[in-house]
Amino acid sequence: MTKKNKTAITPTREQDYPAWYQEVIKVSDMAETSAVRGCMVIKPWGYALWENMVREIDGMFKETGVKNAYFPLFIPLSYLEKEAEHVEGFAKECAVVTHHKLEKDDKGGLKPAGKLAEPLIVRPTSETIIGESMAKWTGSYRDLPILLNQWANVVRWEMRTRMFLRTSEFLWQEGHTAHATEQEAKERTMMMLDVYTKFVEEYLAMPVIRGRKTVAERFPGADDTTCIEAMMQDKRALQAGTSHFLGQNFAKGSNIKFQNEEGEEAYAWTTSWGTSTRMVGGMIMVHSDDDGLVLPPRVAPAHVVILPIFKKGGDNRAVMESAQSLKDALEGKQYHGRHVEVEIDDRDIGGARGWEWVKKGVPVRIELGPRDIEQNSVFMARRDEPSTQKQSMNREDFIDRITDILGNIQDNLFNRANNYRKENTFEIDDKKAFYKLYRKARGYNNGAFVMAHWCGAEKCEEKIKKDLSVTIRCIPFDSPTEEGKCICCNNSSSRRVLFAKAY
Amino acid sequence: MTKKNKTAITPTREQDYPAWYQEVIKVSDMAETSAVRGCMVIKPWGYALWENMVREIDGMFKETGVKNAYFPLFIPLSYLEKEAEHVEGFAKECAVVTHHKLEKDDKGGLKPAGKLAEPLIVRPTSETIIGESMAKWTGSYRDLPILLNQWANVVRWEMRTRMFLRTSEFLWQEGHTAHATEQEAKERTMMMLDVYTKFVEEYLAMPVIRGRKTVAERFPGADDTTCIEAMMQDKRALQAGTSHFLGQNFAKGSNIKFQNEEGEEAYAWTTSWGTSTRMVGGMIMVHSDDDGLVLPPRVAPAHVVILPIFKKGGDNRAVMESAQSLKDALEGKQYHGRHVEVEIDDRDIGGARGWEWVKKGVPVRIELGPRDIEQNSVFMARRDEPSTQKQSMNREDFIDRITDILGNIQDNLFNRANNYRKENTFEIDDKKAFYKLYRKARGYNNGAFVMAHWCGAEKCEEKIKKDLSVTIRCIPFDSPTEEGKCICCNNSSSRRVLFAKAY
Repeated sequence: MTKKNKTAITPTREQDYPAWYQEVIKVSDMAETSAVRGCMVIKPWGYALWENMVREIDGMFKETGVKNAYFPLFIPLSYLEKEAEHVEGFAKECAVVTHHKLEKDDKGGLKPAGKLAEPLIVRPTSETIIGESMAKWTGSYRDLPILLNQWANVVRWEMRTRMFLRTSEFLWQEGHTAHATEQEAKERTMMMLDVYTKFVEEYLAMPVIRGRKTVAERFPGADDTTCIEAMMQDKRALQAGTSHFLGQNFAKGSNIKFQNEEGEEAYAWTTSWGTSTRMVGGMIMVHSDDDGLVLPPRVAPAHVVILPIFKKGGDNRAVMESAQSLKDALEGKQYHGRHVEVEIDDRDIGGARGWEWVKKGVPVRIELGPRDIEQNSVFMARRDEPSTQKQSMNREDFIDRITDILGNIQDNLFNRANNYRKENTFEIDDKKAFYKLYRKARGYNNGAFVMAHWCGAEKCEEKIKKDLSVTIRCIPFDSPTEEGKCICCNNSSSRRVLFAKAY
Repeated sequence: MTKKNKTAITPTREQDYPAWYQEVIKVSDMAETSAVRGCMVIKPWGYALWENMVREIDGMFKETGVKNAYFPLFIPLSYLEKEAEHVEGFAKECAVVTHHKLEKDDKGGLKPAGKLAEPLIVRPTSETIIGESMAKWTGSYRDLPILLNQWANVVRWEMRTRMFLRTSEFLWQEGHTAHATEQEAKERTMMMLDVYTKFVEEYLAMPVIRGRKTVAERFPGADDTTCIEAMMQDKRALQAGTSHFLGQNFAKGSNIKFQNEEGEEAYAWTTSWGTSTRMVGGMIMVHSDDDGLVLPPRVAPAHVVILPIFKKGGDNRAVMESAQSLKDALEGKQYHGRHVEVEIDDRDIGGARGWEWVKKGVPVRIELGPRDIEQNSVFMARRDEPSTQKQSMNREDFIDRITDILGNIQDNLFNRANNYRKENTFEIDDKKAFYKLYRKARGYNNGAFVMAHWCGAEKCEEKIKKDLSVTIRCIPFDSPTEEGKCICCNNSSSRRVLFAKAY
């Protein structure tokens, strides 16, 4: 494998972080933009990653008793009118269906026809329609809890889009639960945040900070919004999952009532929680490098790629047979609930072949030529190490150790991201230093995570947001009680909160 | 368990077949209608079944090298204008998005705003947009074959809807493949029909007749449409899957060209194939009875339900512990790639409890009371046997034999359906007999499968359709060459074809 340039991607992260991000997606063949404004095509490599993510997290949901269901794509306009609070938020920008057929126009083209009596909205969330069903299904306390989740596509008309991070149509899951008691709903809120934490840290290898949102940053209608926040390589934060305790607000709006054990009518206590294809964008930005995508083994569509090395005039059949038997041996091994997945790339296209797999982020690459076969060895490269760093290994050793190697790459990615976050997280008590840090923040060096004191006043939060485009990402659960002065107004504060620029 | 009425469902199949069908869906808690015209809510029990179906068939697709991808929900209107041939078909009735936001109207409600320059259609199929991507991805013969599949929701505005069988929004998969040679595309067409056959027969326990559609019944744009047809209990046919060989027609329409090994530009050969939530409707209609849903074990959301029998003043804790240890022992067993799935229903609601699980179609029900525990036995009922027919079994025997019992139920359902179809399939050579049979067909006795001679003329096919609402379901692959006279015009014919009324 000859290395033509220092890095596989132009520009590098330092040169132009947003352009680097788009390039990683392009060269790894994960997704591309489509002719439809704001919508992307998720290509097989990106979709296989998403499928792995869905399978794992869906299994975790089910272990907690959650059941999947499916609700209609369309929401009647009148439902959104009822939910005025939400309409003030995201629901304003949405796809509106006004007609139910097409007919020929004068110029031989087609035009909308069959105007609907009531316009339909393509779901920006299924909250209202799930609420309606829950109200219907909830008669007595025996019907509770209702623990629902839906995997679906949703649409929010976005003016500026970025693949995976912000697209008009995206894939997500939304969980909605209804409970007989406040306590149980609160426990469920935290249980689902725990699921997200476990999934994002253990599968996506992204360390997160767990906490609750400030009142201003809360989900509309929630009594409490909890979240996990991860640091991207440009030091900005990305929210990788939220879990909301909705109190009885949502139940009152949707009329989710039940007869309790005492025979009295009561409103249910509800929660909701969601993640989306945004997580894919986060995962890309945490691990990838100037050579392209880097995939955590636990969610990678393939763990190992074998690149047979053909010699002109050599016995290529023997090489292919050896590659196939290596693949079979590796696939006999289990790695985290699925077998080790191996690709053989036997295209005879020279050095570009190896680079393609570097760019696609496959955790382990194996070169296998006549000499390796003679010596019963394989030539191995790990995606978490520089692309020039390869090592020869005994073939049986490699087969025996493959799950350890994958586990080691997984851990390494997590630790690297964790160290990176630590190196870029500061406690700041001086307002000038705080402002200086964020005023010069841009591109790859887009600030830092700052743990600073905040008095709790919304106007301080607003001022910082207005001045610096920096927000309170969360009030971390593990932030200790500590006397201090608000970074903005100098009033007394009892706790540090997490500030950052955010995606 | 006391039996209050002869059957759990009113009406029975014989009394009112369509009403019986809706009732099965209702009492089994699979799905319900929604406030959105023509769209249904798939409830957890129905969705878990669908998930099992998707997992199995998706695994089969992948074994043949197919990769999943995801394409935008919206299709620009101009794409459909290009595909004039399709617009003549289903694409006329579709959901049209004309606006991208909502704003307040004079009455404090909301109205559509932000008119789009070009209307967007909610995909009735993704054919055009997948074609566009394929054209982009296909440079040389090295890029072929492209083997894509998409799981997605699609919308076709339907005037008369029936849950699972015909809904405005439904879930489906559409596969699209592009090949360098005609031969390879034809083989792929049959390979995917084989996958459908295997899945529907071995998992849904529905015997099918495989064949090709007549020219009149072909998918628009296809050179050949192959299908599998199953008999419902009312003797009507349901198409449970289709696989199309599109020749170069689709490639020409979508400009899917490639450079072949000789360096010449050529159009690709393509296929497409699909199945949908309709299959769920078919499965219901093939196996269910007047007591409700009957689920083939291989796709059932749960295999076994344990009903602990509590005695007033008895030691209920011991019963629950025994139920739990039985569940654990059963879940240690593997049945077709997943562990045996067991529910414990410990609600103290009397006889209604057992009937609920009959209606939900769980393959095996176990009653477990203090006496069973004393005697180390279980009291077992199988859903494929009359609900009164229960047997006491030694507990260890039952655990040892559970996968055999499930396998036996699966086989029994298939054989029963197969016999039913045989009993209701006739060779008819007399036009009067043919007309008489279908003229009196209605309700539960909606005709039969008739193997009759057909001359090949479209006008005969049309006449029978017009006179009797009977169509040629397919020209079965295994229909032997045989001299005969067309059932309609008496001209000579060389082969029998399958006639039936159809869903």
